[in-house]
Amino acid sequence: MITLPLCTNKAPLYQQIYQWLKTEIQSKNYKPHHKIPSKRKLSEHLCVSINTIDTAYSQLIDEGYIVAIPKKGYFVCDIDVYHSINVAAHENTQPKEVSSKLRIDFSPSDIDHGAFPYKIWRNLFKSCFDESDQSILKKTTAQGDGNLRRELVSFLHSSRGVNCDERQIIIGAGTVNSLHTLSLILTKNTSVALENPVYRKAYKMFDHMGHSIIPIPIDDKGIEIEPLKDLSNVAVYVTPSHQFPLGISMPIGRRVELLNFANKADGRYIIEDDYDSEFRYITKPLPSLQSIDQNGKVIYIGTFSTSIAPSVRISYMVLPVTLLNSYHRIFSEFGSDVSILEQRLVAKFIAEGNYEKHLNKMRKLYKDKRRHLTKELSIFGDSIKIIGESAGNRLLIKLKTGDSGRDMCKAAAENGVKVYPISDYLIGARLDKYDNTFLLGYGALSKKELSEGVNLLYGAWNYDE
Amino acid sequence: MITLPLCTNKAPLYQQIYQWLKTEIQSKNYKPHHKIPSKRKLSEHLCVSINTIDTAYSQLIDEGYIVAIPKKGYFVCDIDVYHSINVAAHENTQPKEVSSKLRIDFSPSDIDHGAFPYKIWRNLFKSCFDESDQSILKKTTAQGDGNLRRELVSFLHSSRGVNCDERQIIIGAGTVNSLHTLSLILTKNTSVALENPVYRKAYKMFDHMGHSIIPIPIDDKGIEIEPLKDLSNVAVYVTPSHQFPLGISMPIGRRVELLNFANKADGRYIIEDDYDSEFRYITKPLPSLQSIDQNGKVIYIGTFSTSIAPSVRISYMVLPVTLLNSYHRIFSEFGSDVSILEQRLVAKFIAEGNYEKHLNKMRKLYKDKRRHLTKELSIFGDSIKIIGESAGNRLLIKLKTGDSGRDMCKAAAENGVKVYPISDYLIGARLDKYDNTFLLGYGALSKKELSEGVNLLYGAWNYDE
Repeated sequence: MITLPLCTNKAPLYQQIYQWLKTEIQSKNYKPHHKIPSKRKLSEHLCVSINTIDTAYSQLIDEGYIVAIPKKGYFVCDIDVYHSINVAAHENTQPKEVSSKLRIDFSPSDIDHGAFPYKIWRNLFKSCFDESDQSILKKTTAQGDGNLRRELVSFLHSSRGVNCDERQIIIGAGTVNSLHTLSLILTKNTSVALENPVYRKAYKMFDHMGHSIIPIPIDDKGIEIEPLKDLSNVAVYVTPSHQFPLGISMPIGRRVELLNFANKADGRYIIEDDYDSEFRYITKPLPSLQSIDQNGKVIYIGTFSTSIAPSVRISYMVLPVTLLNSYHRIFSEFGSDVSILEQRLVAKFIAEGNYEKHLNKMRKLYKDKRRHLTKELSIFGDSIKIIGESAGNRLLIKLKTGDSGRDMCKAAAENGVKVYPISDYLIGARLDKYDNTFLLGYGALSKKELSEGVNLLYGAWNYDE
Repeated sequence: MITLPLCTNKAPLYQQIYQWLKTEIQSKNYKPHHKIPSKRKLSEHLCVSINTIDTAYSQLIDEGYIVAIPKKGYFVCDIDVYHSINVAAHENTQPKEVSSKLRIDFSPSDIDHGAFPYKIWRNLFKSCFDESDQSILKKTTAQGDGNLRRELVSFLHSSRGVNCDERQIIIGAGTVNSLHTLSLILTKNTSVALENPVYRKAYKMFDHMGHSIIPIPIDDKGIEIEPLKDLSNVAVYVTPSHQFPLGISMPIGRRVELLNFANKADGRYIIEDDYDSEFRYITKPLPSLQSIDQNGKVIYIGTFSTSIAPSVRISYMVLPVTLLNSYHRIFSEFGSDVSILEQRLVAKFIAEGNYEKHLNKMRKLYKDKRRHLTKELSIFGDSIKIIGESAGNRLLIKLKTGDSGRDMCKAAAENGVKVYPISDYLIGARLDKYDNTFLLGYGALSKKELSEGVNLLYGAWNYDE
């Protein structure tokens, strides 16, 4: 019979009995098909209530250690011997922490955090999150929240000239997530032509999804059309408002050429990533490519990650009606991956006119930072050229002389400042014309930090020797 | 010269000038290479300031309609004729609205909305969303928020026996999103063996991602092992705590067999979807499969969609250390798709002990509903069998006689009640043994609604004739 050291100051009694029996069975002290004591017998033996034994036995039955056979009693189940194998030790391969020396990071994707409308956001939360509207707890369809889609229809029309209705809008959890949805719609039989240099995450996502990747060179008007000519079954990924990373705005002539390329054959699409089109400083934002497309060839994608905050994981994709069938065939069974709460907050932020106000405020703020940064960069004199500064919250500097981009980044990093070489955005081999060219994002940096950053760069690159 | 009907009560003057010139160029009234008036001349002619003309010209230059040639003036660019093609009309293929006749929906994925801890959630928001912590505006790495991952390490260990450290946890935007991440890690060369009947979204996602799909029958202990025997390079997707949709708990014997199958060859993995393991009514939750795996063969996945709310798009995946390299190789360049705000809310909800309390509260609530529903179902007498009611917030009813499942669902729907036939969860052909078997979720329904639903079913299926 069982000799079980029951102990009242530990786990509940039933659990001690359960644990003890389980161990006996696992270690094969109780063999398969062995009959274990009846509940009554064990309860008397251990001087505990029959309920306690009942709970322990129920758990063992539920987990499959014992089985109850009516009129016969409880028997041990036949459980395989568990085979353990050697697992090799593994290194921690997580990305390393950024060097602690870093003082100024000219990151191109950061925003000004201090200017975030915290108070408005708290009020939005109060008005969205309420017992009276339980829909905030429910999932939406894969397309996303109807309120947000309706707000986007009119906002995108007035600000970007986008023509669509809410059925064409698919809310995603960020640009990469939207591109991934699109990848499934187009299927991996569609090749993807990408601007080179390119927004790396887009490139990587299409690559991982198994698309054939075709890098296309960029001239001073944006993506070149000639190398596309012979491609069929292709989606051309472009950032016409403000090319990432080069900052080029695609002129109307090239836009029409690109659309005409798409119009000439079935299976040709243009993916317009309208990233950071909101911030344009000298003239008003350029109308989107989608706004001049009359043939359902343009897939339009935008995000709130620069215009509100990178933590807000909401993007939007406008599909041509011709692709809606394919979309629903795949996604009608799924729900949305995007936080309903955040969709509601953003919808209300737009509806109440606060998004427009916020954009105006940020435009002024970034314009001021941009002016400050270009002024500070003037200490480099003729030795650098500033490019692509008319939009976004980033610009390029191209140095007339210097070592390879990578060495100069290293020198900068050693002096506590991080810049982003264009060579990092290239698909495949290095291209001479992008040597010594660096991306400097200024969204998150104060004027003081911008000055410090420029001075650190100046020192790192030996201009003050 | 230009005869332009300037009008002061409409758009800004510069915009009228810009728009007029643009139209002239688009319509080829101004031919390519044509020289347009100098800014000074046009300003005098129209009697507007030179600044107004300058703004209009800048916009036209930016958009590529005209070009400025130093010392020569402004010239019209050569823009392709835009080719318009016929786009066929398309039907609206969006899923149709649910019939307005529907009174009671026994949806298996809904929760009790009234019991949501609104007040706690509002307090969490107040304490998480604050000017003093700007990290709430930043993206996290692809793995997700560190606080949430740390909370999950200890919560999953104490509640589910899961052994891991925070480096192994990947936060996702729902189970399907986590499975998608996993699909990229395993690559589509890995076949996926699925329980049949199965959680359809998982099946569909693996199918869309291009994996070869192998449906495996289920017996009374869960997935059968014999049909797996010859498979290599395979991931076996299972729901051992409470099989979806059948509600079977996999006994320890079958669990060990399954793990031993995985241990016998490289490239074999088990995906343990621990969906709704939190709610177990008779005995305590069964330990996870991951807790007995010593060889890094189990990928553990869970979600907050039933335990908190379907709108909270947060899931978690625990990867074996052997898969971390592959994970980082793909995802180290990406950020997280999951709302940072919601990650913080949930992390704090767990940390402050409120999640545990909430689960206890919901367990009582659902237990009570379950008792009520089974009591109400007793009007069917011997003609139905209730299955899989020991966990989750759903159960199965199997009718002894009746028409095919689909006809009975139709009859129910016509009587205003929606039930879910198991045949809908099958991969491929219909299986006789799942005929006349229906899933009834009771999470969202009140006792009154449960009674009404059962009565409507009883009527629909002609028991009261």
